[in-house]
Amino acid sequence: MYSGIADFFKSGLFHWAGDATTFKGDDNFIELVCSPNNPDGATRDAVLGTHAGKRIHDMAYYRPQYSPMRGPADHDVMLFTVSKATGHAGTRIGWAVVKNKEVAQKMVKFIEMNSIGVSKDSQIRAARILKVISDGYEFPDPESTVRFFHFGRHLLADRWQRLRQAVEASGRFSLPQFSPEFCEFFKEHAETYPGFAWVRCEEGQDCEAFFKTMKVLSRSGKHFGAGSNYVRISMLDRDTNFDIFIKRISSKD
Amino acid sequence: MYSGIADFFKSGLFHWAGDATTFKGDDNFIELVCSPNNPDGATRDAVLGTHAGKRIHDMAYYRPQYSPMRGPADHDVMLFTVSKATGHAGTRIGWAVVKNKEVAQKMVKFIEMNSIGVSKDSQIRAARILKVISDGYEFPDPESTVRFFHFGRHLLADRWQRLRQAVEASGRFSLPQFSPEFCEFFKEHAETYPGFAWVRCEEGQDCEAFFKTMKVLSRSGKHFGAGSNYVRISMLDRDTNFDIFIKRISSKD
Repeated sequence: MYSGIADFFKSGLFHWAGDATTFKGDDNFIELVCSPNNPDGATRDAVLGTHAGKRIHDMAYYRPQYSPMRGPADHDVMLFTVSKATGHAGTRIGWAVVKNKEVAQKMVKFIEMNSIGVSKDSQIRAARILKVISDGYEFPDPESTVRFFHFGRHLLADRWQRLRQAVEASGRFSLPQFSPEFCEFFKEHAETYPGFAWVRCEEGQDCEAFFKTMKVLSRSGKHFGAGSNYVRISMLDRDTNFDIFIKRISSKD
Repeated sequence: MYSGIADFFKSGLFHWAGDATTFKGDDNFIELVCSPNNPDGATRDAVLGTHAGKRIHDMAYYRPQYSPMRGPADHDVMLFTVSKATGHAGTRIGWAVVKNKEVAQKMVKFIEMNSIGVSKDSQIRAARILKVISDGYEFPDPESTVRFFHFGRHLLADRWQRLRQAVEASGRFSLPQFSPEFCEFFKEHAETYPGFAWVRCEEGQDCEAFFKTMKVLSRSGKHFGAGSNYVRISMLDRDTNFDIFIKRISSKD
């Protein structure tokens, strides 16, 4: 989706050149680094090195509920969004932390050209949501035990445990494995709990079709540069839907 | 601003070709018709005819408070916005009425490519605002006399009267003249009260600089394809600011 608008307009400035790992071009490139990665949740580094080209780091999933916080991030251009941070995808609010002032000014100019500005309603709502979450840590209410990222991590830990149990019991598919790392946010070793399950069907079949037989809709790995023996499944649906999902993949018939 | 994003990306699909009245090209064009026009408030028709090319009608100011409603509009592609209709520019919500299904689908696709979707917060707020205004006419509250477009027209009529008096008294600038027309919304003959005053300085001087000497900031006509002896001034600022504006241009020193 990243370069969608440039390709859509047949931009004379740049175009989508495909997967960075197979890139064969000169030094005039922009590498988009999605870390933690969608769909597999893995921490990623730039694969084309840092001596040439430019890099944009999409850090949408770099949030304590999903991934251990490895300390301050220090890339040239870093993208964030409330969508994955708090679940408010519909507000369409993101932000960037950018080192170079000229690049930042061009990004502001782009927003002005594109839509004259971003919804004030959304900006106000997003600011309010972030304030509530931040206040929950800076000024904890002694009567409340709800801290947003703790809540999110607890929920995801429970879901990932249930999913891993179901996957192990079935023996027909597998999940990525992650090593615990020290998290600078929780100040302890923490597991990785991606927002998506990146599932591999072990018998090499069409995994999307296989899940469909269990009445589970998934997104085939072929949309993500992988084989059709992979599917992506959201871990962020409502509790009742997640319960049904686990029940269906655990069914023995 | 219209073609800004295409020029910004150096689009291979289309580019801004300038003022339609001076267009010298083949039949493969899109004419943007802004009616009522910004900045002068005049009703406009396509100038390149309708036998060739395509037309997009920007009808942002086609609202009863500004302009007599001449009955149902029937153009191929018509653009509207809450910005000018209700003053909620910051919600960034507009809509289009489109005859051709394929064109409409391409517009939806563009929104998806551009931002994956439009702020739900803004959509909900805009829908609520439009409902309140619509309900004010469909289900009038006997205890309330506030009907939105009546209120807006009344306010603009008062402002335009005060502006025309001040302009006449000064003798140094002039305003466009409009003939009353039958308005299908108010069911009576109605004046035109544009959201902008398009002011001509009669002595041919730099009008923006001249207004600056009166401590009035305006936007020079040269940004709108006219001479610097014109300026555009908003008629939609807050009451207190409008009062100061009239006072400053009426000052005799």
